[in-house]
Amino acid sequence: MLRAVEIAANGPARGVNPQVGCVILAADGSILAEGWHRGAGTPHAEVDALSKLAAGEANGATAVVTLEPCNHTGLTGPCSEALIAAGVSRVVYGVSDPGDHSSGGAARLREAGVDVAGGVLLAETTARLGDWLPAARLKRPVVTVKWASSLDGRAAAADGTSQWITGPEARADVHARRAASDAIGVGTGTVLADDPSLSARFADGGLYETQPIPVVFGARETPTDAAIRRGTHEPIFATGGDLAAELRALHARGIRSLFIEGGPTLASAFIAAGLADEVLVYLAPAILGGPRTAIGDVGITTIDDALRLSIESVETLGDDLLVVATLKKKP
Amino acid sequence: MLRAVEIAANGPARGVNPQVGCVILAADGSILAEGWHRGAGTPHAEVDALSKLAAGEANGATAVVTLEPCNHTGLTGPCSEALIAAGVSRVVYGVSDPGDHSSGGAARLREAGVDVAGGVLLAETTARLGDWLPAARLKRPVVTVKWASSLDGRAAAADGTSQWITGPEARADVHARRAASDAIGVGTGTVLADDPSLSARFADGGLYETQPIPVVFGARETPTDAAIRRGTHEPIFATGGDLAAELRALHARGIRSLFIEGGPTLASAFIAAGLADEVLVYLAPAILGGPRTAIGDVGITTIDDALRLSIESVETLGDDLLVVATLKKKP
Ligand SMILES: NC(=O)c1ccc[n+]([C@@H]2O[C@H](COP(=O)([O-])OP(=O)(O)OC[C@H]3O[C@@H](n4cnc5c(N)ncnc54)[C@H](OP(=O)(O)O)[C@@H]3O)[C@@H](O)[C@H]2O)c1
Ligand SMILES: NC(=O)c1ccc[n+]([C@@H]2O[C@H](COP(=O)([O-])OP(=O)(O)OC[C@H]3O[C@@H](n4cnc5c(N)ncnc54)[C@H](OP(=O)(O)O)[C@@H]3O)[C@@H](O)[C@H]2O)c1
Repeated sequence: MLRAVEIAANGPARGVNPQVGCVILAADGSILAEGWHRGAGTPHAEVDALSKLAAGEANGATAVVTLEPCNHTGLTGPCSEALIAAGVSRVVYGVSDPGDHSSGGAARLREAGVDVAGGVLLAETTARLGDWLPAARLKRPVVTVKWASSLDGRAAAADGTSQWITGPEARADVHARRAASDAIGVGTGTVLADDPSLSARFADGGLYETQPIPVVFGARETPTDAAIRRGTHEPIFATGGDLAAELRALHARGIRSLFIEGGPTLASAFIAAGLADEVLVYLAPAILGGPRTAIGDVGITTIDDALRLSIESVETLGDDLLVVATLKKKP
Repeated sequence: MLRAVEIAANGPARGVNPQVGCVILAADGSILAEGWHRGAGTPHAEVDALSKLAAGEANGATAVVTLEPCNHTGLTGPCSEALIAAGVSRVVYGVSDPGDHSSGGAARLREAGVDVAGGVLLAETTARLGDWLPAARLKRPVVTVKWASSLDGRAAAADGTSQWITGPEARADVHARRAASDAIGVGTGTVLADDPSLSARFADGGLYETQPIPVVFGARETPTDAAIRRGTHEPIFATGGDLAAELRALHARGIRSLFIEGGPTLASAFIAAGLADEVLVYLAPAILGGPRTAIGDVGITTIDDALRLSIESVETLGDDLLVVATLKKKP
């Protein structure tokens, strides 16, 4: 299975489909074939591995695969049927298939008399799937809402000025997290006010190798000469206003992780809608007071309805603090 | 000197005057006498030690004293003159006298031909003086402003409810800090809204041995049956509205440390007036949004005027965080 996890990494780390690896073993434990998934529209890992074998060669073999073989006829046909047809007698997998349509592969295999064991090396197989797995379960990208504020929760001074509320270490951390996200979201308010490029850059201005796709939330037009239009990726314009629907659409395009950078209106809307999984609060050692809170109204009127979080970590970044917290699910 | 620091602790830890210890040594280094200060109106440590010696016995002796001998004729007469009159030939002290009227003792002694060395065991002698020393320098109590808020800086939900925004560990920490403060300050708004007792209590409701003096800031009357009137100490009513003047008056009464517990109006007023030395922010892992910020307006309009702090520590208290920060002096 560790070998299957390893070769899964040959597939693309981003996109609609997950990184999956498959190793086919002979009865004596020797490797007959290996396969991995190369992205949407290409054979799944099991079919890729089987394709390397002559007819009959997989008879009585064991297939070790990082993700439960699928059971739906998509672009490639169900893997469970392919394994049965090839005469595989044993299937060992890691993570259960979270899909509504694709799950049931293990049951189908058992029905056909195949010996099946799931949950093998669950930590390793889960880790390989990254954000694909929680996104598949949520049926939307995993959403991180970030804000930077003073100790008293202000994102800007009364006149709107906010540069630089946090220091260079905090900004560098934001850029690293941008690079690690599939997409980065802002509201039209921020685009129109700041004309940000939203690229992931090093301190010297150089670009990270992987860049997030910019997503602009809101109905207002983004100017044709906006900086956001001149980056590595074409921006996606999420103009509908229904955040849950927009997230489903982004997920369907293969976006697994979305980093919401503001402004306050959009960040508050994500939190109020229950669509934030994680928050990152960059706290500057400053007091500002005044009207410009980093988070506005989130629909809470009484203390018992407060959104509760679990603090995952607190880190010092130069003079600033970074608090990472996950939202607790409502009972 | 370590012995002088030790016996200084025999004096009262609170009040207008500091804890000071004095040891008088013969030429061979043996101890001739020890003395300490027992509080305002009683002899200073040097005079207390000299009083234990017969006339002439201190001739040629060395006086080791934790604080520079005073040079003013207060209730007790200047210690520098008493040492000169006793024939002491050498004076070794720790901290320089910060008082406008009382300083100059070392110079007076030198003038009279006494051999003087200051700054000896400065860390230890400074630590023994506690808040007395910074308060003497500031000519007001050392002020700590505390607030408890959600991660987004709210002290309460929109309807005003705030119990319990932070958990039991954070509350226990607040009570320990109350007990360690000479006085605890709140605004009339909090007294009228919450009727707090402001006592320092253990989790079981039992009282700490030392209790802070409650100080109510504001012109509005505190009801005759208010809980704050039923504690260990009579409350002080600071009705003037000029916080700097009120602080000077509190200092004159011997209050060295003042713990401001709110509400938002009073806490913001202390911060805006530049009268907060330290802030304690208890951050609950919650998001509230809405209008009830822990800190209101502090007179800042643009980011360059932000009040900058140094973070001294970040601590986990149960589910909450405590950020301790000191305000940087404006250049
Ligand atoms: N300190 C920080 O961390 C930080 C970060 C980013 C920005 N900022 C500052 O924030 C300011 C802009 O913030 P902002 O709050 O005015 O704008 P914003 O949050 O960037 O954008 C608000 C817009 O989002 C759109 N939107 C889409 N779906 C929404 C929904 N479900 N609910 C609410 N809005 C939705 C709406 O656009 P339409 O009206 O077009 O439909 C809305 O007007 C700028 O001054 C910027 O400098 C600060
Ligand atoms: N979450 C927390 O940590 C926390 C802590 C404490 C209180 N609270 C909540 O805060 C609320 C009360 O807060 P609040 O802001 O209304 O009242 P507050 O800050 O307790 O009191 C405000 C009053 O302070 C007096 N004051 C004296 N000197 C002042 C100055 N220089 N500037 C301004 N005010 C001065 C004024 O009294 P006069 O008008 O009488 O002259 C003013 O009305 C309550 O609901 C309480 O539950 C929360």
